[in-house]
Amino acid sequence: MKAWSGRVEKPTDEFVERFTSSLPFDWRLFRVDITGSVAHARMLGATGIIPKNDAGAIEKGLLAIRDEIESGRFEFDTSDEDIHMAIERALTDAIGPAGGKLHTARSRNDQVALDLRMYLKGEIVACAELVVALQETLIGVASDNVDAVMPGYTHLQRAQPVLFAHHLLAYVQMLARDFVRLLQCHSAADVMPLGSAALAGTEFPIDREMIAEELGFERISENSMDSVADRDFVVDFLAAASTIMVHLSRLCEEIVIFGSTEFGFVTLDDAYATGSSIMPQKKNPDVAELVRGKAGRVFGDLTGTLAMLKGLPLAYNRDLQEDKEALFDALDTVRDCLVAVAGMVGTMTVNSEVTEAAAGGFSAATDLADFLVEKGLPFREAHEVIGKIVLHCEKTGEALDALGAEEFASFHPAFAEGVPPLGARDVIARRTSAGGTAPERVAEQLKAAAARLASAKEWIDERG
Amino acid sequence: MKAWSGRVEKPTDEFVERFTSSLPFDWRLFRVDITGSVAHARMLGATGIIPKNDAGAIEKGLLAIRDEIESGRFEFDTSDEDIHMAIERALTDAIGPAGGKLHTARSRNDQVALDLRMYLKGEIVACAELVVALQETLIGVASDNVDAVMPGYTHLQRAQPVLFAHHLLAYVQMLARDFVRLLQCHSAADVMPLGSAALAGTEFPIDREMIAEELGFERISENSMDSVADRDFVVDFLAAASTIMVHLSRLCEEIVIFGSTEFGFVTLDDAYATGSSIMPQKKNPDVAELVRGKAGRVFGDLTGTLAMLKGLPLAYNRDLQEDKEALFDALDTVRDCLVAVAGMVGTMTVNSEVTEAAAGGFSAATDLADFLVEKGLPFREAHEVIGKIVLHCEKTGEALDALGAEEFASFHPAFAEGVPPLGARDVIARRTSAGGTAPERVAEQLKAAAARLASAKEWIDERG
Amino acid sequence: MKAWSGRVEKPTDEFVERFTSSLPFDWRLFRVDITGSVAHARMLGATGIIPKNDAGAIEKGLLAIRDEIESGRFEFDTSDEDIHMAIERALTDAIGPAGGKLHTARSRNDQVALDLRMYLKGEIVACAELVVALQETLIGVASDNVDAVMPGYTHLQRAQPVLFAHHLLAYVQMLARDFVRLLQCHSAADVMPLGSAALAGTEFPIDREMIAEELGFERISENSMDSVADRDFVVDFLAAASTIMVHLSRLCEEIVIFGSTEFGFVTLDDAYATGSSIMPQKKNPDVAELVRGKAGRVFGDLTGTLAMLKGLPLAYNRDLQEDKEALFDALDTVRDCLVAVAGMVGTMTVNSEVTEAAAGGFSAATDLADFLVEKGLPFREAHEVIGKIVLHCEKTGEALDALGAEEFASFHPAFAEGVPPLGARDVIARRTSAGGTAPERVAEQLKAAAARLASAKEWIDERG
Amino acid sequence: MKAWSGRVEKPTDEFVERFTSSLPFDWRLFRVDITGSVAHARMLGATGIIPKNDAGAIEKGLLAIRDEIESGRFEFDTSDEDIHMAIERALTDAIGPAGGKLHTARSRNDQVALDLRMYLKGEIVACAELVVALQETLIGVASDNVDAVMPGYTHLQRAQPVLFAHHLLAYVQMLARDFVRLLQCHSAADVMPLGSAALAGTEFPIDREMIAEELGFERISENSMDSVADRDFVVDFLAAASTIMVHLSRLCEEIVIFGSTEFGFVTLDDAYATGSSIMPQKKNPDVAELVRGKAGRVFGDLTGTLAMLKGLPLAYNRDLQEDKEALFDALDTVRDCLVAVAGMVGTMTVNSEVTEAAAGGFSAATDLADFLVEKGLPFREAHEVIGKIVLHCEKTGEALDALGAEEFASFHPAFAEGVPPLGARDVIARRTSAGGTAPERVAEQLKAAAARLASAKEWIDERG
Repeated sequence: MKAWSGRVEKPTDEFVERFTSSLPFDWRLFRVDITGSVAHARMLGATGIIPKNDAGAIEKGLLAIRDEIESGRFEFDTSDEDIHMAIERALTDAIGPAGGKLHTARSRNDQVALDLRMYLKGEIVACAELVVALQETLIGVASDNVDAVMPGYTHLQRAQPVLFAHHLLAYVQMLARDFVRLLQCHSAADVMPLGSAALAGTEFPIDREMIAEELGFERISENSMDSVADRDFVVDFLAAASTIMVHLSRLCEEIVIFGSTEFGFVTLDDAYATGSSIMPQKKNPDVAELVRGKAGRVFGDLTGTLAMLKGLPLAYNRDLQEDKEALFDALDTVRDCLVAVAGMVGTMTVNSEVTEAAAGGFSAATDLADFLVEKGLPFREAHEVIGKIVLHCEKTGEALDALGAEEFASFHPAFAEGVPPLGARDVIARRTSAGGTAPERVAEQLKAAAARLASAKEWIDERG
Repeated sequence: MKAWSGRVEKPTDEFVERFTSSLPFDWRLFRVDITGSVAHARMLGATGIIPKNDAGAIEKGLLAIRDEIESGRFEFDTSDEDIHMAIERALTDAIGPAGGKLHTARSRNDQVALDLRMYLKGEIVACAELVVALQETLIGVASDNVDAVMPGYTHLQRAQPVLFAHHLLAYVQMLARDFVRLLQCHSAADVMPLGSAALAGTEFPIDREMIAEELGFERISENSMDSVADRDFVVDFLAAASTIMVHLSRLCEEIVIFGSTEFGFVTLDDAYATGSSIMPQKKNPDVAELVRGKAGRVFGDLTGTLAMLKGLPLAYNRDLQEDKEALFDALDTVRDCLVAVAGMVGTMTVNSEVTEAAAGGFSAATDLADFLVEKGLPFREAHEVIGKIVLHCEKTGEALDALGAEEFASFHPAFAEGVPPLGARDVIARRTSAGGTAPERVAEQLKAAAARLASAKEWIDERG
Repeated sequence: MKAWSGRVEKPTDEFVERFTSSLPFDWRLFRVDITGSVAHARMLGATGIIPKNDAGAIEKGLLAIRDEIESGRFEFDTSDEDIHMAIERALTDAIGPAGGKLHTARSRNDQVALDLRMYLKGEIVACAELVVALQETLIGVASDNVDAVMPGYTHLQRAQPVLFAHHLLAYVQMLARDFVRLLQCHSAADVMPLGSAALAGTEFPIDREMIAEELGFERISENSMDSVADRDFVVDFLAAASTIMVHLSRLCEEIVIFGSTEFGFVTLDDAYATGSSIMPQKKNPDVAELVRGKAGRVFGDLTGTLAMLKGLPLAYNRDLQEDKEALFDALDTVRDCLVAVAGMVGTMTVNSEVTEAAAGGFSAATDLADFLVEKGLPFREAHEVIGKIVLHCEKTGEALDALGAEEFASFHPAFAEGVPPLGARDVIARRTSAGGTAPERVAEQLKAAAARLASAKEWIDERG
Repeated sequence: MKAWSGRVEKPTDEFVERFTSSLPFDWRLFRVDITGSVAHARMLGATGIIPKNDAGAIEKGLLAIRDEIESGRFEFDTSDEDIHMAIERALTDAIGPAGGKLHTARSRNDQVALDLRMYLKGEIVACAELVVALQETLIGVASDNVDAVMPGYTHLQRAQPVLFAHHLLAYVQMLARDFVRLLQCHSAADVMPLGSAALAGTEFPIDREMIAEELGFERISENSMDSVADRDFVVDFLAAASTIMVHLSRLCEEIVIFGSTEFGFVTLDDAYATGSSIMPQKKNPDVAELVRGKAGRVFGDLTGTLAMLKGLPLAYNRDLQEDKEALFDALDTVRDCLVAVAGMVGTMTVNSEVTEAAAGGFSAATDLADFLVEKGLPFREAHEVIGKIVLHCEKTGEALDALGAEEFASFHPAFAEGVPPLGARDVIARRTSAGGTAPERVAEQLKAAAARLASAKEWIDERG
C-alpha cells in the first residue's frame, strides 16, 4: 500500500519498491508506532477532529494489530513502504474507512520522528541499565580482590604499583560518565514532534500537549520544520555509544594483554573463551577481541550518519531514512557488548600472586625521588639522581630494593640516614592523596561508586 | 630540556626529538599552563611541601615568563619537548634551583590533563558566545523579514508555504540544542585532575580541593588512573562541534541553492561573496561552500580521535598527544565558521517578492485534502481525490487556484459549497498548531528564543 | 558444533555462543566455502595426504550440501559457530569420519581468508558489470540528448554553457576510474592464502599452486603470517566503494536540484519517484536522496574497518570477524545504488527547452574577455573590463546580448569593430580545446567512451 | 590581489579574506605552480596565443620569483587569496602588463588541479622511497636475526613457533602491497588537467599535449568538467596512506607489547625511547605510540575528505579547497611515521634468548595432532585427543614435551611408537609448505623481497 497512489499514473518500479522500502528494518518500531497512533487517535477524538467512536474503533483495531505482530500472525506485504503503512493498511482492512481517518493532522514525517524518539528513549533506559550492571560487576570484582596488588602501567611500562581494585575503578568512572551521557541523550530525545505534520504544522485544532502527556514526553517541539528535519538525538546517541565502545575496547585490550601467557594476570572462564580449529592448546579471548573490533563498527555508524546529515536542506529528505539502520546497529552492538564484557569480567580469575610479583622492581623509583625531595632536593635534581641509580641497577642486574644503604648513599648523601620501605604495598599505602591508590582512598571510591549506582537505579526505575 | 635525562645514556635522535615534540602546537596552552602551575605552587607553599618563599619565587618567575611569551620576547628552544618543559626550563634559568621544586607532587600526565581541561573550558565559553551571536543574527534577520513568505520544501520539492522567519527559526532551534550540548561539554571538562600525578596519586600531603577552588573547577577527579587516561571531554567536544557543523552545513547548502539564479531567493552581500578568476560575471558563495566543506574536516577530527583512543590500555599512553591538534583544529574551525555564517546571513538580502511568488502553486493541496476531511472524508480518500486534481492540473497546465468551483466539484461533490482560500498567506495563517508557521505562532517562537538567549548570556557572563 | 571441544571443560555460555557466532551473516559464503573445500580435498587426495577415496567422498558430500543449502533444505544449527563449521558438521554427519579429514593441513584462519577473497572477487566482477551498465545508460542518455544545451555551473552559479551530453560524460569519466579501481581491487584479492594454516604453514606436503590453479587465482600468498592477518583487500574495496558512492551522490544531488520546480531541468519517471503521505501534489526524488544518503553508510563501513584493523598484533585476531558485515553491507549498497541510479537516469526526461533557456544570460562573459585578449589586452585587464559591463547590466536589468555595439564600445574601444556572437551555442561551439564542450569534442568523447566499454566488457566476460 | 575586482563594488570583508584564503597552507605548491605556469607560458608563446617575447618575459619573471621564495626573500601579502594569485601579482609587479597575459586560456580551477596533481606525484615518489627504505630496514633486521625463534601469536596467545625473520617479513609483504598502491595512486594522479579552463574548455587554440609532455604527464584529461571537479586522486592517496598507517600501527602495537617487561622480546635504543617526568625508572616507547596514534589522524583525513566530497554538484565548488590541508597532513604524517619506524626498528635489540624461551611450551600441540593424522586419524579426532592432553598438562603443571611416551600413549595408542620431536626449532623446520616458516622458505622470502626492492628502486629512480 502506498500513501500517495492518486498522484502518479505509473506503478513504482519493482526494484525501486524494494530499494526504498524500510520495512526490513523499521518493523521493530511497531510497538512505539502503535502506541503513538493510539495517543494520536485519542487526541483526534477528544478534540472532535474525528468522531469519538471512530477514534475508539481505531484504538481497538491498532491494539489487535499489535497482538498479531507480537504473536507472529501478522502478514507483512512486501509492497508496504514501511511499518507505518503496513499497520495503517491492516487497520483499514480491519475496521474499514474509519482507518483512513487516523492519518488526519499528521504526516509520516512527524510520525517517524515520534516513533524514533519513543524507541530510542526506551533503548537508552535499557542501555543505562546495562551500564549500571557492568559497573556493579566491576565493583564486585574489585571488592572480591580488594587486597590484590598489580603494577600500574603507563606506555605499557610498569610505572607504579596500584591496587587491582583501583585499576578497575578507573573503568567504573568511565562508565559513570557514560551513564551521564545517556541521561543527556534521553533528555535530548524527550521532545514530542507529532503535530508538526509534513513540515509546517496543521490547520486542525490538535492538542499536542495532550499527546505528550499521554506518551510521557517532557516537552513538545517548538518549530515544525526543525521537528521533521532534526536527527540530532540520533547523533547524540551514536556519539555516546562510541564513547562507551572506546571504554569497553580499552578494557578488552587489557584483558587480551593481561590474559597472555607472558602477563598471566587473568584467566578467562571456559564459558567466555573459545578454542582453535587447528591448535588444540589454544584458549582464546574472542569475546574481548570481538568487543574491541566492534568499537570500529559503532564509530562507523556515527561517521556515516554525520556524513549523511551534512548539507541536507530543510525540511525532511529521504536521506534521513538512513538514520535507522545505523542507530539500530549501534544499539544492538552496545547492548551486546555491555552484556558480554560484564559476563567475561565477572567470571574471570585474577591471578593475584602473579600481579603482585610483577608489581615490585623499579616501581618504587618515584618514591625514592620523593624521599630526596622531602630532604630538600628540588624534584628535578632528585629525579636525575634516581635515574642514575636505576641505570646502575639495570647494568648490574640488581633489584632496586636489594641495594644497601651505603650503595644508595654513594649516589646521594641524603640516603645515609636510610631509605623508605620500597615494597609495592608500602608504595601503595603512601599514595593517600585524594583519588590515589592507597587502600583507604580506594575504599572511599568503592563507597561513592555504590552510592552513585543507587541513584542511577532510581532514575532507571522511574522510566523502566 | 628533557624531564628525564638521568635515565638514559644516549641523547634522543634529532628526528625523534622533532617527531615527538608537541611544542609546535601545544604552545597555545601557555597561559593555562602558567595559571595552573601558579595554583600548584601556591598549594605546595600553603601545605608546607615546599618553603613559602620558594613558592613565591616560582609564582613571580612564572608570571614574568607569561609576560615574555605574550610580548613575543620568549625564546623557544627546539629541544624542549613541550610547552610544559619550555616553561619549566625558563623558570629554572630565571630563579635557580627553586624552579626545580615546582614539579613536586605532580607529573606531566596530570599537568597536561589539567591544562587541556582549562583551555577547553575557556574555548567552550567562547564557542557558546558565538552560538548565541549567530542565534541573535538569525532572530534579527527573521524579525526584519517577518512578513516574508516562501515555499517550505521537503525533498527539495515545494511542499507547503511557510514564513521565511519560521524557516530561519528552525536553525535557531538547532543552535539552542548546540548551546545545551556545549554546556554539557563544559560540565564534563570541569573536573580537576591535578594531584593524580603519574597515575597513582602522590605521597605528598597535597590539597587538591584548594587548587580546584583557585582555578574555578566544579569538582576534583576521583580516580587517579582515570584522571590521566581520560579524554572523554575531548570526544564530547568534537561530537558537539560535529553537530554544530552539521547545522551550519545545512544552512550553507540552502544559501548556495537559494542564491542560485534559478531560485534567486537571497543575494549575498559583495563583502561576503567572491568572484571568478576567469568568468567576469560570477559572484560566488564561497563562504557558504567553505563552511559546508569544513564540516567534513571536523567529522574527521572526531573520527580520528575515536580511532586513536580505541584499545588504549591504562593509564597514560603517548598516543594521547594526538588529541591536541584535532581539538585545536575543531575549535578554530567551529569558531571561524560561526563567525562566517553570522556575517554572511546578517548581510544577505532576502528577495521576498521572489520567495512569495514561488510559494503559490500546488502548495495548497494539503489544505484541499484537509477541507474534504472536515467534510467527513477519511484523510486517505481525500488525499486520493486531491492527487487526481493535481494530476489533472499538471496535464492541462492550469494553476490549482485557477480552477473554478464546478471543476473542483467534478472531482468531489463536497467542493460544491466552495473551496477554502488557497493563497500562500491563507495557507500559512491556518497552520496555527503549536510550533506551526502561522504568524502568531512564529511571533511566540521569536519571543521564546529571545528569552532563551537572555538566560544563555547569563551563563556566559558568569564564566566570561 | 565447535572445532575445539577437547580443550575446554565447560560449555560456552549461551549468550557468548550467539555473540561470537558469525553464521547469521557469513552463511552467504557457503558457495565459495564449498568450492574451496572441494579444491582442498582434491589436493589432499592428489598429494596422498588423505586417501583418494576419502577425498572423493568429501567432494561428493560437499556438493550435496551445496544443493541442500541452495534449495533451502539445509538446517542450520544455532550452535554452529560459523558457516565453515556448519558445513563440516553436515559433512561428517553425511559421510562419517572421512569428513573429519577435510580440515587436515588447513585452519579456519586461512580458510576464511580464502573464502572472503573468492567471494569478493566474484562480487567485484558483478560490481564492475554494473559500473559498465551505468556508463552505458549515461552514454545512451547523452546520445539521445546530444543537442541539448544547459548552463555549466561552478559554485552552483551559472558559469558557461555546455552540452548536456558533456555534463553527463563527466560522470562517465568518474565511472571509468571506478572501473580501474575495481580492477585493482580484484588483483589485490587475487592471491590464494590456503595452506598458510593457522599462521605458520603446515608440515603436510601440500600443493598450494594446484589449489590456486583450480580456483582460478593468479598467485599464492608468500608469507603465512601475513596471509591470515591481512585484510588490505577488504579496505581496498571499501575505499573503491566509497569513491563510487561519492560519484553517485554527486549525480544524485544534481538530480535533486535539477528536478526542483525552480530548475525544472529534468523530470523523473513516475516509476522512479514517490509521493507524500500528506501532500497530494508532491512527486519526490526519493531514489536520488536515498543513494545520496547511503554514501555516508559506505564511508562508515570504511572508517569502521580501518579503526578495527588499527593496532592489531599479528597474526589472526577475532576482531577480524568484523570485516564481513561491513564488506557485505558496502557490496549490497553499491550494487543496489548502481542499479537504482541507472534506472532513474535512464528513464528521466530532460527538459531541453528549459535548460537551453537557462544557458543564456551572462554565460558568454568569458568569451567577451577572451575577445579583448585576442585584441591584445592582457587577460587580467580584459576580465576587469567585462566585470564592469556585467555590473552595469545587473543594475540596469539589461541582458548581456541585448547591449548594442556602441554600449560595448563605451566600455572598451576594441568593441567598436563588433562583438562575437554570444548565444549559448556560439559559446559552446568555440570551446574546441581537447576535452572541451564543443560538439565535435563531445562526439569524440562518446566514441572513446564506447571503445573503453567494449574492452571493459571483455575483462568482465573473461571472469563472468 | 583579487582575480575578480571588476565585478564587485565592495571590498571583501576582512574576516572573509582571512577565512577564505588558502595561502597559509597552499604556499607549499609554489614550486609546482611556477613550473606549471612556465609550461603554460611556453605553450601560449609556441601557439602564438601570446607574443613569444611576452612568454619569455613571463618565464624569466616566474623563475626569479621562485628563487625569491626559495631564498625567503619573497613577501607574501595577506590579501592574496592563494599562492597562485600571490605569484601572479608578483609577476605583474615585476614585468608589467605582460604578466596579465599568463592567465590566458586557463582558470584557477584547472590551475589548482594541475598544481595538486604535480605536487602529489612528487610526494608519492618520496613516500614510495620511504616504503622501500623501511622494507630494507626490516629485511636487514630479519637477516641479522635469521636464526632467532619466537612464538607466533594468534589472539595474542602463543600459537606456533616461528622464525623472528618470518614475523618481520609479514610486514615486508604489507609494505610491498603499499608500494603497489602508491604506484596506482601515482598513475591516477598522472593526468594533465590544464586547458580545461573554468569547466568547459577554452576557445584559444591551445596545445594540451605539449604541456603534458613538458611536465612529464602520462596523458591529458578527457572531459573538462570532470577535470576541475575531480579529487579522486586525493582520496586514492588518503586511502593508501590509511592502509600504510594500519600496517605501521600494527607493527608499533607489537613493539609496545614486545617491549613490555613481561614480554621482554625487544629493547629500544635510547635514541628512540623517552623517559618520564616523574618516574625515573621509565623508558617509554613513545615513538611507537605516537605512530599508532597518528593512524587515527590519517583515517580522519580520509573520512573528512569523503564527507566533504559527498553530494557536490559539478563542476568546481569552493568546498574542494578543503582537500589540501587533509592531503598535506596525511603526506607529512605518513612520511614522518615511515622514517620514525625505520629508525626505531633498525636500532632496536632483539632479545633472542627471551623469544626462544617463550617459543616452547604448548606451541607444538598442532604437530602432535598432525602426527595422529599421519597415523590415519581424522584431523577432528586428533584435535580432540590433543586437547585432552593439553588440559591434562595444564592441571598437572607438566610441560608438553616433558610427557613420557607412555603418558602420550595413554591418550592414544598411536603414540606408542613414539612422538615427533617437539622443540620449537623442530616444529619450525617442519613447516616447509610454500610461504611457511621453515628456514629454507624464509630464505626464499628474503631473496624474493630483495629482488622486488631492486625493481621498486628502478621505478623510483625513473621518477626521482
